[in-house]
Amino acid sequence: MTNKTFVFGHKNPDTDSIASAISMANLRNQLGENSECFRLGNVNKETNFALNTFKFDAPQLLEKVDENNTVIMVDTNEFSQTADGIESSHVKMIVDHHRMKLETTEPIYCIAEPVGCTSTILYKLYKQNDIAIDSKMAGIMLSAIISDTLLFKSPTCTEEDRIIAKKLSDIANIDMSRYGLDLLKAGTDLSDYTPEQVINIDSKLFEKDGKKFKIAQINTADVNDVFKNQAYFEAAINQEIQNDNLDLYVFAATDILNANSKIITMGTKSNIVEKAFGVSLDHNTATLENVVSRKKQILPNILSNLD
Amino acid sequence: MTNKTFVFGHKNPDTDSIASAISMANLRNQLGENSECFRLGNVNKETNFALNTFKFDAPQLLEKVDENNTVIMVDTNEFSQTADGIESSHVKMIVDHHRMKLETTEPIYCIAEPVGCTSTILYKLYKQNDIAIDSKMAGIMLSAIISDTLLFKSPTCTEEDRIIAKKLSDIANIDMSRYGLDLLKAGTDLSDYTPEQVINIDSKLFEKDGKKFKIAQINTADVNDVFKNQAYFEAAINQEIQNDNLDLYVFAATDILNANSKIITMGTKSNIVEKAFGVSLDHNTATLENVVSRKKQILPNILSNLD
Repeated sequence: MTNKTFVFGHKNPDTDSIASAISMANLRNQLGENSECFRLGNVNKETNFALNTFKFDAPQLLEKVDENNTVIMVDTNEFSQTADGIESSHVKMIVDHHRMKLETTEPIYCIAEPVGCTSTILYKLYKQNDIAIDSKMAGIMLSAIISDTLLFKSPTCTEEDRIIAKKLSDIANIDMSRYGLDLLKAGTDLSDYTPEQVINIDSKLFEKDGKKFKIAQINTADVNDVFKNQAYFEAAINQEIQNDNLDLYVFAATDILNANSKIITMGTKSNIVEKAFGVSLDHNTATLENVVSRKKQILPNILSNLD
Repeated sequence: MTNKTFVFGHKNPDTDSIASAISMANLRNQLGENSECFRLGNVNKETNFALNTFKFDAPQLLEKVDENNTVIMVDTNEFSQTADGIESSHVKMIVDHHRMKLETTEPIYCIAEPVGCTSTILYKLYKQNDIAIDSKMAGIMLSAIISDTLLFKSPTCTEEDRIIAKKLSDIANIDMSRYGLDLLKAGTDLSDYTPEQVINIDSKLFEKDGKKFKIAQINTADVNDVFKNQAYFEAAINQEIQNDNLDLYVFAATDILNANSKIITMGTKSNIVEKAFGVSLDHNTATLENVVSRKKQILPNILSNLD
């Protein structure tokens, strides 16, 4: 029997979840631990662009884990957002940059920092452990920082993200601004996605005080073009609300050029969104000025207006 | 208005909770942040011995925090075990070595490691930040490691705890084994404590799946002497069960010389303890061979046998 450690991020993986799984598994392997990275869903177009650019294969798909699996979680600490069966597995380490929602029976390694990207923390772990980052690895880690910080425009972006992104771009020998815009634009291509697929490109489930809600987010360079299909998105959202018994669904189309978000909000608790952002919904939609971050802006505002 | 950061550990503070609050507040002050350490209850005799030896005043008592307080928590991450009002305060950082039970609305700094003592992690944070540890600070941090690892006998003790304790003893210029035994023995003096006070020297409240239980622990060099007062302890425990609506109470007298624990178990869910440790209770008591750690042995076994 192999004693392999499974390394993965969250469902509906974004570039950070894939890149952090890749770079964490490599770090643990370099340190002498048998590790393998996995993805918990389809690789999106932005991530695919990054993987192709730096010549990585996508990690293998993982369906579930069980009590025989030793696990390292990256880019999430919430069991509801990661592999099925996670509660019964042996989670030994977590590296993340999201709000905490975590319960374990035994002490574990947990490193969480309020920085823009998990890969920023992983860069420091490489340094602390004296493990070199080659140009390929630097490229995929840089891609994660660009993705999570919207090329440093997100309020989640810290000085540390900027400094480490610059170091990684030097190692990867890449023009950060030009590559960054290409990367983000690759992620805005919604052609050949069904409405159901669009709302699930990057959707996360949250639960608090008995209320269940999802916040989905896509990036776009043309909000109006996205909202031509509003009726189709609403039908898909309604279906999800019924299937998953959701109280609230927020779908945010984030404008990567103008740094705001236009949302579709549905569910019996839609009024929470009006209260949380001081907006009036018009045909289920509203524009949230200067809001680009689910983690730092959308989620905390909803959480603190739940009741 | 001052922008002071409040640094504290858990209620019923042990030596690590006090020492880690002291050394963390000092670290943050050295880094230019205005910080102050606090205690959330009486200083026990062991901790008092350490404070006197290394010439520290006990931290100020703190009753509660509110939404105006910025907080660093050490030696715990469970809101139920720390200052009242913690949910409304701004918790910015946690350094701990216990199992995780944490929910926040925003990302925070959280460093948890499965080592024997919070002070072991703090030693590394001093190093990472290039802040010197003076002999006084080394002495109180060493005391915490000795206390939490029962002078390296506990199964929670790691190689890292041993190595860092040795470094701290060199800085403090102290004979670790001799001082360690004196420190632990100082903590076993139960004279002038009431039974109510004895069971509350180091008692922690836990909740899971709607069940509430407390695990109290004392150290002793003479178990039989402690159990002369069994009837008094049982009366005090019964009172706590009624006051706090507990399903289970475990009081463990841990023999620091023979490295086992004799327990008193009461409450409607006492059978959980029999199942968890494969023992039969005799007049509410049982001896748990090789069990000395609440965190690594008593708590996980109870948690996994709750239903």
